[in-house]
Amino acid sequence: MGRYSDVAENSEQAMSIKYNTIVYELKKQGKKVLVMSLGEAFFDMPLFSFDALPASEIYHYSHSMGIIELRKKLAEYFMRRYSIPINPENEILITAGSKIAIYMALMAIINPGDEIVVQEPCWVSYPEQIKLAHGVPVQIPYDKTVYDYEKYITPKTKAIIINTPHNPTGYVYSREEINHLLKLAEKHNIWLFSDEAYSDFVTDKEFLSPGSIDTEKKHTVIFNSISKNFGISGWRMGYIISNKKMIHNVLKINQHLITCPATILEYYVNQYFDRILEITTPLMKALNEKRKVVSAHMDKLGLTHLPGEATFYFFLSIAPTKLTSEEFCTKLLTEDYISVVPGLGYGRSCDKFIRVSIGTASLDEIKFGLDKIKELVVKTS
Amino acid sequence: MGRYSDVAENSEQAMSIKYNTIVYELKKQGKKVLVMSLGEAFFDMPLFSFDALPASEIYHYSHSMGIIELRKKLAEYFMRRYSIPINPENEILITAGSKIAIYMALMAIINPGDEIVVQEPCWVSYPEQIKLAHGVPVQIPYDKTVYDYEKYITPKTKAIIINTPHNPTGYVYSREEINHLLKLAEKHNIWLFSDEAYSDFVTDKEFLSPGSIDTEKKHTVIFNSISKNFGISGWRMGYIISNKKMIHNVLKINQHLITCPATILEYYVNQYFDRILEITTPLMKALNEKRKVVSAHMDKLGLTHLPGEATFYFFLSIAPTKLTSEEFCTKLLTEDYISVVPGLGYGRSCDKFIRVSIGTASLDEIKFGLDKIKELVVKTS
Repeated sequence: MGRYSDVAENSEQAMSIKYNTIVYELKKQGKKVLVMSLGEAFFDMPLFSFDALPASEIYHYSHSMGIIELRKKLAEYFMRRYSIPINPENEILITAGSKIAIYMALMAIINPGDEIVVQEPCWVSYPEQIKLAHGVPVQIPYDKTVYDYEKYITPKTKAIIINTPHNPTGYVYSREEINHLLKLAEKHNIWLFSDEAYSDFVTDKEFLSPGSIDTEKKHTVIFNSISKNFGISGWRMGYIISNKKMIHNVLKINQHLITCPATILEYYVNQYFDRILEITTPLMKALNEKRKVVSAHMDKLGLTHLPGEATFYFFLSIAPTKLTSEEFCTKLLTEDYISVVPGLGYGRSCDKFIRVSIGTASLDEIKFGLDKIKELVVKTS
Repeated sequence: MGRYSDVAENSEQAMSIKYNTIVYELKKQGKKVLVMSLGEAFFDMPLFSFDALPASEIYHYSHSMGIIELRKKLAEYFMRRYSIPINPENEILITAGSKIAIYMALMAIINPGDEIVVQEPCWVSYPEQIKLAHGVPVQIPYDKTVYDYEKYITPKTKAIIINTPHNPTGYVYSREEINHLLKLAEKHNIWLFSDEAYSDFVTDKEFLSPGSIDTEKKHTVIFNSISKNFGISGWRMGYIISNKKMIHNVLKINQHLITCPATILEYYVNQYFDRILEITTPLMKALNEKRKVVSAHMDKLGLTHLPGEATFYFFLSIAPTKLTSEEFCTKLLTEDYISVVPGLGYGRSCDKFIRVSIGTASLDEIKFGLDKIKELVVKTS
């Protein structure tokens, strides 16, 4: 047998995917599972015609920055909605999902051993991506704030990653916090990576991207997701926004890794951009209303969660259970057929939490699920 | 400004993309360019209906191994056509193009400083991918054969990469050569990566994959491309075949990098698998007939090329020109408006070659282009 690399052997499967694979297996066995573990909201999207797309273009590679028409639309959208000026020629690159965009940007800044700062709970793929890029994730426990971050910065630090709105808490960073983070980035000459895959899910309050303050994007790299914000997660389309030099470096990497997202889908999203937004915008509003009802039900049950106001995620405390978060979730899944994701997947400081996703189940189902979660917490305390 | 990594700063744009970008700019200026630089064959593919696809699935993530229905179809196809037994459950993974499949497999085996052996001319992205994965490409000059490879193997070698049929020569490796390479892999406990993105383009002679000899895939990793073989290069869909352990390691990486290819296109290809093959198979045959005519015209002009019998590529000698391959191609493009790719992009030993692609232009256009190439060789000798 051939030999493997350390990064591959040490890489861990995403906890969310691990649990969703068990769900998949249980369903195959005919079990009915209440799924509150998916990283998706199920929007009821119609399928528009593909016949209207330019037939001579859809089968071929697109420009490796993505088609210019869509880059222009996204730039206009960002200006209109988030007041961020973007040059569509050289400050935005369309990628095959925002996941690979973040990974390529990490490759663009990490020399082996360099450190990237990220606070827990953190999206499962950040630490793994950093390690796959031969960097070192420096993970800050969940009970710190951005005003504690500077203590974790060393000469080896290359970037801070934030996720706003946040998966798995739903937290939206404030103007003061973003300002503080940008000052840190400038002072230490590091990058601020802002993963904004759920930006459109903020409907009630101001969403502030560091890009609207650092308009020259000297230290800011923004990641966004057409897949998530447009309710088409399986289409793998995202984009990265930064200064010309950063985008050029990511472009080179993109050309050797993947060339472009599926051209036909780039044309589809470009063609139906406004119509898709007309459908998703009220759905986002409805989701936030659902979030409030769910949050009130949690309060009623005495279940607490980390602060957050947007997205379909809650990061729920399961203290005072005596179980680890993995034991808790396995028990919940195999005995009650309810799937949620163990907090441990979001960092070692988070083993008394679980991620509950309200994107796909109905309100009644979610309430039923939360009642069962409460029961299990009490039973295992 | 934030700081960049060495791998990004040192990464080079693919020569083919560099020249195709110039073509794009010239066309925007209204110039008519004879394009013989593209890595695509333009098949006239119809667009089948998307309405027949499972509406509840197409928008969401698929299994991160790819949908099982398509894995099964590909496994059957490989058994039928190439006599390679594949377990669709755990020996094949569908990726967002074969490019990222190769990169992820390199990540799965390379520790920083490990060496990967590849012969020139080699596809532009192999050396860059190896470097991006913190490995060292060991490039063998074009005038060696596989029987010279062992001299380049050191204790740091992790794999040999071959490309069969070969881009840019069209060469198809023989049974004896494949056997020799597998013996080397076994003797030195290294991997044999076989990039077979153009396998279906072999219509006249036997195509032999190392997978049909090393049926347990102990040392073999096969990469193939639905995009290329199905004439839908812009759809970014490929797959990787190997033993269970290798596939599991690549799966973990895939989950953190990209999750899955565009789900809707997986379902499309699965749905129309046989109908697409019915269309592409005769087109591949026609392309090989075209190749023979082009080859005869080259002989007539006294233009020589490296041996090759399949694909739409020729690796043409421009000796005795006094120009470098870049100077030659730039002159050809800016004075005659004919685009081909400089040999230098395929390795330092190849600066007296150019890559000519016959996939998109008509036979008459190609003959005209070759006449002009011959003229320029004579004029610059």
